[in-house]
Formats: sequence, structure tokens, C-alpha cells
Amino acid sequence: MKKMKKVTCVAFAAAALLSTSGAFAKTVEITMTAREVDVATNGKAVGGADTMAAWTFDGTIPGKPVRVNEGDTVDFTLINPPENKNSHAMDFHAAQVNVLDEFAPVKPGEQKHFKFEAKVPGVFMYHCGASPMVQHIARGMYGVIIVEPKDRKNYPKADREYVLVQQEYFPDVENYGAMLNDANAWKGSLINGKVLHYDPVHDPNGGHDVLEALPGERVRIFFLNANVNLPVALHPIASIWDRVYINGNPKNTLYGIQTYNVAVAEADTFDIVTPKDKDVAGIAIVDHSMNAALRGAITVLVSKKDADPKKGHGEQIILK
Amino acid sequence: MKKMKKVTCVAFAAAALLSTSGAFAKTVEITMTAREVDVATNGKAVGGADTMAAWTFDGTIPGKPVRVNEGDTVDFTLINPPENKNSHAMDFHAAQVNVLDEFAPVKPGEQKHFKFEAKVPGVFMYHCGASPMVQHIARGMYGVIIVEPKDRKNYPKADREYVLVQQEYFPDVENYGAMLNDANAWKGSLINGKVLHYDPVHDPNGGHDVLEALPGERVRIFFLNANVNLPVALHPIASIWDRVYINGNPKNTLYGIQTYNVAVAEADTFDIVTPKDKDVAGIAIVDHSMNAALRGAITVLVSKKDADPKKGHGEQIILK
Amino acid sequence: MKKMKKVTCVAFAAAALLSTSGAFAKTVEITMTAREVDVATNGKAVGGADTMAAWTFDGTIPGKPVRVNEGDTVDFTLINPPENKNSHAMDFHAAQVNVLDEFAPVKPGEQKHFKFEAKVPGVFMYHCGASPMVQHIARGMYGVIIVEPKDRKNYPKADREYVLVQQEYFPDVENYGAMLNDANAWKGSLINGKVLHYDPVHDPNGGHDVLEALPGERVRIFFLNANVNLPVALHPIASIWDRVYINGNPKNTLYGIQTYNVAVAEADTFDIVTPKDKDVAGIAIVDHSMNAALRGAITVLVSKKDADPKKGHGEQIILK
Repeated sequence: MKKMKKVTCVAFAAAALLSTSGAFAKTVEITMTAREVDVATNGKAVGGADTMAAWTFDGTIPGKPVRVNEGDTVDFTLINPPENKNSHAMDFHAAQVNVLDEFAPVKPGEQKHFKFEAKVPGVFMYHCGASPMVQHIARGMYGVIIVEPKDRKNYPKADREYVLVQQEYFPDVENYGAMLNDANAWKGSLINGKVLHYDPVHDPNGGHDVLEALPGERVRIFFLNANVNLPVALHPIASIWDRVYINGNPKNTLYGIQTYNVAVAEADTFDIVTPKDKDVAGIAIVDHSMNAALRGAITVLVSKKDADPKKGHGEQIILK
Repeated sequence: MKKMKKVTCVAFAAAALLSTSGAFAKTVEITMTAREVDVATNGKAVGGADTMAAWTFDGTIPGKPVRVNEGDTVDFTLINPPENKNSHAMDFHAAQVNVLDEFAPVKPGEQKHFKFEAKVPGVFMYHCGASPMVQHIARGMYGVIIVEPKDRKNYPKADREYVLVQQEYFPDVENYGAMLNDANAWKGSLINGKVLHYDPVHDPNGGHDVLEALPGERVRIFFLNANVNLPVALHPIASIWDRVYINGNPKNTLYGIQTYNVAVAEADTFDIVTPKDKDVAGIAIVDHSMNAALRGAITVLVSKKDADPKKGHGEQIILK
Repeated sequence: MKKMKKVTCVAFAAAALLSTSGAFAKTVEITMTAREVDVATNGKAVGGADTMAAWTFDGTIPGKPVRVNEGDTVDFTLINPPENKNSHAMDFHAAQVNVLDEFAPVKPGEQKHFKFEAKVPGVFMYHCGASPMVQHIARGMYGVIIVEPKDRKNYPKADREYVLVQQEYFPDVENYGAMLNDANAWKGSLINGKVLHYDPVHDPNGGHDVLEALPGERVRIFFLNANVNLPVALHPIASIWDRVYINGNPKNTLYGIQTYNVAVAEADTFDIVTPKDKDVAGIAIVDHSMNAALRGAITVLVSKKDADPKKGHGEQIILK
């Protein structure tokens, strides 16, 4: 097992968050830099440490959302700076390429460039595919790419959008053998990189942000299960998924769903319509698997008349 | 961890089982009383005890089925008698409300009243949402609410209906920490509150009831996975699900399914058509996950010419 | 727990692999012989032994694929030779029969004959249902029956077809109690009976075969999750499932899926279209649950211009 050491990273401003709406296919340039850095995780809330010796794309967990239109070409560069200790790689679930070429590992000091056409609409995982992959994911190298569908007949406009990514929290990220062999090695759940990230109720330390919306809005959740081993039973307490778009594709729509099983490395799109007739309504989006929910996988969405107009738009589809 | 003690409960006859068929939306009054009582579970069959220090709605596991039509208003009251030791709460998965208001905990000696419109058709879990929720579910506080769909075009009439609810059996229900942290803490599966409830074959003590139907009948199973952690792979041995209505909604119909994954806290509706050409046919509805099946999650359905005409109708959609 | 001993088996050439295309329903005779034999599993790659004291249908893991048309009658005989030590049985998931009759156990020295009409199209598991069933499956008694759908409107012709069956690898197959009670008892994943069966990359011993196809071909995977306890998150690295036919039925089609949850004892059909514009493309079909993938559940599919024309046709829908 490789040892992770603190490294100083050269900042590289990657314009990874790109919302596009053109009618014609275009090429979208994305650059990400692998960074091996300590990241705050609030792990103390479940008996771990408050920072993790993380491996990341651009220093955050998850990496920045990539957003393109169906038919666009993604022109991607992965930089692995010489300060890093490990090889890294990029595996876009939205790409149809050659696993031994585009997704091949990149050594420290090198970089990799490839293109692919985003032919299939929906929401997809991206992650580091370098060996041992379990550890690269468990240390934080994942994110979502949203490929906006061309055909929007069965895809009503959303008023707000949020990205939520869940991942098992392993206090001992050095020990990837335990991730494979010990069903009790994980001790909690990270949502967008933190235990109880958007749950001000359950963490004694408080101070957590929440998702917001106006009463009666259609809130669209792009959800990725970045767990390494376990499915997620995604349920909105005090609400019902108005629609679940399997893999984020409107051709695969389910209606009126209480709980949806999201497999490991599956991403789906979930719509909630907040109550129109209530001035305030709290909804708690949870993995109803109790060992995940009670150890971190709870996200509060509040609909209220004075909701922050910026939340759920632009860069705030992921709340810090 | 709170200690459960035997308590004497004031019986409160809740008319919770309500089959309705009116063309107009109406208000349905439901009252449930939280009861902390010992309940027979047949746990000895898998190395536990034959009774559980349970927490229940109205003294049974599961609680009584609630049945309304799409568009009806449920007018609900939860009574927590002063004899109880714990707060309890009601979380209807069919309700779109405010988690901090309607679903808030109710202290012993208090009660809670709220209304909601059952806008979304299907079959939904209800459960106690008081902390620690894992323990309130594991001790038995759950049941189903069936919201009959208005649009029945793709929803053939069932000849019999049964409710089946599966839940992990934890011999040590006091130890809710183990429910979260120890993947081996559960030792079996309860079906409608009992290990091998409807399986006269595998329990050496015998004497178990079975589901019944006539040859050629359409038997509708409302199935809830009330496990706290594990999905269920629901399979009818010697049969095939004619249809699976995901979340019980005919808009989400699958055809000809051998095994369907039911996530934690998901409920779905399953149709079997029993063989017309066989005088007797045994079907075993199992969680094909062997650790659940062989430790309790087997339900026998027998189709035969002298099937009990009362089974699968009215109150006998749950067999005691 | 019963001890398995090496037995000498009378070979019985069962014509189990039958591809049919006639317009009229017919009767297809299938005979299988239960064989208790040592089978090579490559288990050493994950810390076990290279052979398993297996129980099989006809000596292979999985058993031979059975292939019929919707509406055909399967006329089946199970032979349990006198040399065997255990009772065995046949449970076809495609059959609608009487669990206590057709699927009943057959003692050594006896045989069982029954017929059923394959009324429901798709891909189904078959397995031994004798007690303790967990052990009969874990030792290798399973396979697939493909029931070709009559209605092929939404079912494009495949250029190649492959059968993949995944199963947890238990180094200690004698200890079926651990299969039920110990979440860490399994140590890897078998694909068609072997750890890393079609993965020349990850096994230091090398020499493994791979699936092949021409660029631009539609490759159809009939996938069975024969795990005894765990769901599979089936994902093609560097590709996207063009279609997932749930239970193999074109009436249940999903489009553009990155990862699909296959429950225990569920089988489904998955289409990949290999890249037309690449001379060579490697795709790795994995259970994205890392504890399964990194311990065996990786299958390489290579599309290239000189693909072996025999692979993916006839008997080579399962590669040895």
C-alpha cells in the first residue's frame, strides 16, 4: 500500500463548470489537475478525523461538475503534477473509448489528453481509474458529468438544481485492503465530501449549510453513488420523488417514487416539487440504509419564501 | 442506548384497515397508538428468543395496513400513552409535508395530529421516525399505506391481495450501535413480524400458516422492505412475477420478472398468476439473498381448489 | 456439513446448448447430470485454492446454457448418479410449476423428469434448489436459460452474444454457515467459474482469454448474478450499455445506462455497441462494487478488426 504524504500543489484554475445551451454541438475544453492534499471531511462526527489525506481532482471532493450538451465533444486534459506521489487517471462514464488508451494511468510530472463525444444524455460518474482504484475513489477522486439531453419533451424545466455525491467514509484511507475485505471498515457517509454536510440537525457542532428552494419549485437532484461497495436507497423524507430519470435520461422515467436504489457507480436524476401550500417545508434527502443515514448521509432541503436566489443555480449547484 | 421496559398499555382500537372505493375524494381518519410491548417473533428458529421487546403501532408488527384512494385526505392522530418510555413519531412515505412539523417526535403522554392528501398512488412505507430511527424500525414500528390508483387501465383486478413486510431480525434490539456498525449483527429475517411466518416446511416447530389462492387467480403482493440496512431480491420460486409495479404505480410497470431488487424502505406491488392447469401448486416467495432466505424470509403461497375464500380479502390481506 | 469427495462420473452428453429459431412452438429435450467433482477456479489469485470441491451440472461452472423460443416446451431430466453423496434438484426460474413437485430433491441413484412451457421471454437463472441451497449454489450448480422473445420489434439483432455469470468465491465451501452469518466469508468473485476468467491484465499468472468483437458490432451480454448474498453493479468501463433489457425482456428496455443493479438471482440482457471508429478498443465489464471487481469480477471485451469470427456464436457464447 502506498503512503500518502502532504504535497504542495501548484494551483491550476480549471474551468470545469460549464453550463451550455447552444443548439449546435461544440467542443468543450476541460482541464483537471490531480492534487494529493488534506481535505476537511468533518469525519470527527463519526469517530474519525476532521481531515482526510485525500487525492482529488483540483483539490475538492467531489471534483467540479462538468456540464455539456448531448453531442458536444469533451476535450480533456489531466495533469499529474510532479509533486504527487501516485499515478492517476480519468475514467468518464459518459465516454465510449478505449480503456487501455484514454483511461490509462498518468505518472507524476506527466499529463494526458483525449477527446470524446458525449453521445448519451444523462448524469454520469467520473473518477480516477488508477490502481488500486478502490483507494483512488475512497480518497476522493470522483465527480459528475451532466450531459444535457437534446430531447426535452418528457423533461420539465427545473427551477433549481443540486449535485449530491455520496461516498463511504473510511477513517483509515491507507488501508485499502480493509476496503475490500472488511465489511465493517467504513464508518460513515460523506455527502459532497463531508459527513452531515448539509444537516444542521444531527451534528452537535452545527453550522452546516442546507439546500434551499421556493415553495412550489421543481428541484432537480443529480445524485451519484460514489460508494466503493454499497448501494444507496435514496429517499426524500416528507416528500416523494416526482420523477426519477434513470441514468438521468428522460427516456427512462419513473413516476412517484418513495425510494430508489442507486447502485455503486450509478448516477441518476431525481425531481422533487416542494409544497406550494406551505410557507416552510423541510425535506431530508437520505440514504434510507440506516447505517449510512445515521452516520452522515442526510441532506436537508428547505423550501421557504425567502430562499437564497443564488442557491441551486450556476456554480451553486454544489454548495460548499 | 435507551432501555426498554415492559409496560402496560391502554388498548386503543384503531380502525386503521380501511378499504375504500368511492369515486370522490374523502377524508379518512386514522388513529394509531404507540405501544411498547413484548411481541412473539419465533426468533428461536434462528438462535434468538421467541419474543422481542418491541415498539409497535397498536401492538402488532407490522402496524395495520392503511388503505385509501388517490386524492383522499388522511387525517392522522398518533397517541403516545404516558406508560411508554420513549418518544415516537410517524413518517408516512405517502405524505408531502414538513419533516420538522408533521413528522416531529411525540413524547409519552402526548399526541400529534396532522393531515395530508394522498396525491401519489402506490404502496408506501410508514414508520416511526423518532431517534434513533434505526432502533424504532428494528423494534417493529412500520407498516404499509396503500394508495389505490385512480387510473386503472394498466392495472388488472386482483383476485387476492396480501401484504408482506420483511425486516432484519436483531436478537439484541437494545444494541442499536451494532445495527449501524456490525454487518453481522442481524441473524435472520422477519416476515410480517415473525421468522418463517408462513413457511411450514423449514421450521422444525411447524404449525405455520400459508397464503392461499385458487388455481388461475391473480394474486397481488404489496411488499415492503423494512430492513434497516439491506436490499431484498424478491423472487417467487416456481413462478414468475407477471408484473412488478414499481412503487405500486401502474405507470411504472415491468413484465415477466424473476427477481426484483427492493431497496431499503422501498415498497412495490407484485402480481403472480397461479397455474390454471394445476390442482395444487406451491410457490415460495423468498428473498433470494440466501442469508435472508435461509434465516427466515420464505413465504409459501399455495394455489389449490379448496383455498380458503377469506384469505387475501379484507382484514386477511395480512395473515396473523 | 457434508464432506465432498472426488467421484467418478459417468459422462452423459447432454445436448443442453440449443439455439432455435423455428416459428412454431416445439418440445426441447434437456438432460443434465449432477456431478460432484473438483473444478479449476483460479482461486489462488485471491488467496484461495486453484480448485474447488464443486457440485455441478454436467461438470462445468456454470452449467450449459439452455436456449429455447418463447412458447417452447422444455422436457427436462435431472440425473443424480449413485456415486454422488448429496441430493440435488433443479429450479428453473423460467418455469411456472409446483415447488414441491418439479423442483423436489433427487437422491443419488435417482432421476427426475418434468416439463414446462417457457411462456415468459428473457434470460433466467437455473440452479440447484436442494438444501442447503446456499451451498449448492456456492459450489457451482447454476446456469442460464435464454427464452428468445417472439416479439422482436424493440430487440435489434445482436452480432455477437456472450453469457457471463458472476458468483461470490468462498474458499471454504464446506462452511455454509459462514456464507449466511459472516459478511466477510467471501474472498472474491468468479466469472463463469473462475477468478479473473477473462482478465489478462490483473492476474500475475496471465494467460486468460478475452471476449472479442469487430468494431461497430452490437454485443449482447446475458448476465446472471449467481451470488448468494450480494447485488452486482454491472458497468462497462470505457463504454455505456446501449440498452438494458430488464430480465432480458424487450418490453422492459432502458436506454444509455452506465451501471445497472442486478439483484441476487436476477438475470438481464445488456447490449454494447463497440466503437466503429476505433481499430482497437478495450472495454472492461466489471461489478463496480470494488470488493468484487478487484477480487475477480473483471471481464475484458476487445473490439478489433481481426476478432475471432467464432467467438460470440454457437457454443462460444460461453468461452472456456
